[in-house]
Parts: sequence; C-alpha cells; structure tokens
Amino acid sequence: MQTRKGQSIEDESMEIIEREVGSHPYNKMEWPIVRRIIHATADFDFAGENKIVFHKDAITSGINALKNGCSIIADVNGVIGGLNKQNPKDFGNNLICNISDPDLAERAKQENKTRAQMSMRIAASEMNGGILVIGNAPTALLEVIKMIREGVTKPALVIGIPVGFVSAAESKEELQTVDVPFITNTGRKGGSSCAASIVNALFKLLREN
Amino acid sequence: MQTRKGQSIEDESMEIIEREVGSHPYNKMEWPIVRRIIHATADFDFAGENKIVFHKDAITSGINALKNGCSIIADVNGVIGGLNKQNPKDFGNNLICNISDPDLAERAKQENKTRAQMSMRIAASEMNGGILVIGNAPTALLEVIKMIREGVTKPALVIGIPVGFVSAAESKEELQTVDVPFITNTGRKGGSSCAASIVNALFKLLREN
Repeated sequence: MQTRKGQSIEDESMEIIEREVGSHPYNKMEWPIVRRIIHATADFDFAGENKIVFHKDAITSGINALKNGCSIIADVNGVIGGLNKQNPKDFGNNLICNISDPDLAERAKQENKTRAQMSMRIAASEMNGGILVIGNAPTALLEVIKMIREGVTKPALVIGIPVGFVSAAESKEELQTVDVPFITNTGRKGGSSCAASIVNALFKLLREN
Repeated sequence: MQTRKGQSIEDESMEIIEREVGSHPYNKMEWPIVRRIIHATADFDFAGENKIVFHKDAITSGINALKNGCSIIADVNGVIGGLNKQNPKDFGNNLICNISDPDLAERAKQENKTRAQMSMRIAASEMNGGILVIGNAPTALLEVIKMIREGVTKPALVIGIPVGFVSAAESKEELQTVDVPFITNTGRKGGSSCAASIVNALFKLLREN
C-alpha cells in the first residue's frame, strides 16, 4: 500500500533518527521497534528517560503469535487506527476493541470500573494466546495484570504503554513483575500511536526474518 | 459515556498538569486545549519547546463550525480513533478519512504523490467550511496549503499538527503564513492523539460556552 514517495520519506526519517539518537542499549531485534516509536512520536525520550523495556521472550513470542494469526486486542480505537491494515489481512489476525460497546459502559458503571477495565474482562478468551495492546488506559493494564495472576488469561505478549498522570508509570512497573512476555516503558509517556507502532514494527520483523 | 471512575481519573490528571506546568502564555480559551494535549501525551513540551500556536480566529471559527454540524476530515484513521464519538453524534458532524481507500493508493502512485496528499485532494468539497485535522502527514498539510492558495477550498479551521522528521516543522511554519484559521505547533512533535485531543477540547469548549 505504501507509495514510492511515502517509502522514500520514511527511509529519510529513519536515517535522521539513526544520526541523532547517539548510543543506545538496544540489540538488533529491539532497535527497529524503538526506532519506529521515535519515528511515530519524534520523541527521543523513548530511547532515554522514558526508555522501552523488553521482556527477554517478548519479540520471539510476539512474532510467532502474529505469524499464527493471533487476535490483537486494543484498549482504545486509536490503537486500531494506527495499525498498518495490510498486515492483519495477510496473516489473518482479528482486531478487537470493545471500548465503544454501549452495553459495556452500562456494566462498567454498575461495577464502578472504567470502561477500559471492563473491556479487558470481556476479551479474556481472545486475549489467551493473543497480543494485548494498551496505549491509553492504566486501569486496563492493571486489570490485565490481575487477570493473568488469577490465571484467567495468558497472552502471548502484552504491549503495555499507557500514557498519563494517574497510575501510568506505576502500572508499567507492575507489568514487569508478571510472568508474561511484555514490551513496556518507564514513566508517564506512551500512547496509542506509540503502541500501534510497536505492532507495526513486529510485523515488519516477521516479514524480514 | 464517561464513567464516574474515568471522570475522577481525568480530573486528577488535569490537577497534576495545572500544578506542574508553571507559567504559560495561553488565554482562558486556549489553555484548556493545550492542557488536553498534555493530558493525551504526558508531554509538557507542547507548552514549551513544541508550543501550540493559535490563529486569532481559530477557536471561535472551529467552535461555530462544529456547532453547525461541519464535516471533520482527518489524514489518518488514528485521528478518527482518538475522537470522543458522542460529540459528532450529538452535533451531526460527518467524520471523513479516505487514506485506506484502495483506488486512492493506485491514483497516488500514478501521480507520484503520497496517499495522504491524494486523500486531501479528493476531500476538497467536504473540507470547504469543515475542520481539517492533520496528525500524521506533512505532505497532507502542504497539499492543503496549496489547495487553499489555489482557492480550491476554504476550511473553517485547519488543525495542522503532523509529526515527523521530514518537512513536519516546515509544513507547520508554512501554515502560519496562510489566510485561514489554524491551530498548529512548532517543531517535529505532534501526532494523531495530539490532533484528536484538540478536536475533543473544542467540543468541550462548545458545550461549556
């Protein structure tokens, strides 16, 4: 789908990032992912103060799951919007986001949860062996951590990179204590563009390896 | 649609931003917009190094257009994904994003344009009196600037906040020389979350004023 002109702009951007980033701690599978986040945000903090943290099995587990057509579950529609749509078409991955379901909002109100929390609960079975992508809501990430600890679900990969001022940094620290492959970062920054770019980068690694 | 818990997290986040931001140059209509961008990105640079720039008529023109049910045209699906969906439902705004149209990709290739450029060209009539929201592609913003100068279209507001390393900063400087209400920023940063949060903030101002 990428036009020649679009590809040439992307190549030039990646060269600028390589020139400006300086030294970084990432290996040859990790760096293309971090570089794509910087490309999506123009924010070098993702290789510095808000650095990306990889579980040792994250990339392998994520790529294998994508290759086998796993579901991709997102906390918000902005994540789905940021995905390159050709990839899930080619590999048969189902894209799921329940946040705008009106029944969900009603149920969340009744249980005094956020909609994001509730949307994780109802996606437990698709999440099993799937890739969970949280770009917005710390409450969604905390709910998933709870579900994994309860044995309710076991994702192949949790991309947990919510943005925000209330519990975002804490939820990402918590994720690093759970027995599940994860990609996350430190601090408050993150977001749906950032989360989507990680999935796009994993698909690119899958195609190239 | 916001649950009580979701609202309480948002309120707490806004209080943290107020405490940490320090002095800033924004007036009482502008600041709620900038604050919502910081809320969406956890990045105070949008009140500093990458500061938001408002055309003097931007907020009034944007609010009036939204109130009258204008179309909202986005360069990428990530912008649409980040919008609060209740607002356009209540005010009758049509949401438009043509970037994934397969015919468009073919036409863009033939003319050696990016898909983003071509998607702006074909939305010229909806854009007339509408709000254009560019969160990703500098090429889309440059194309719209050209269209406005050619007299092909006259948007009520251009939200031009593309992110990137190639022409992003330059396209945003160029926007500030065009005779059209705009909201933009300086430098490379921006993005679809950022762009969507500006529209969400304008709807909030519309409801409150």
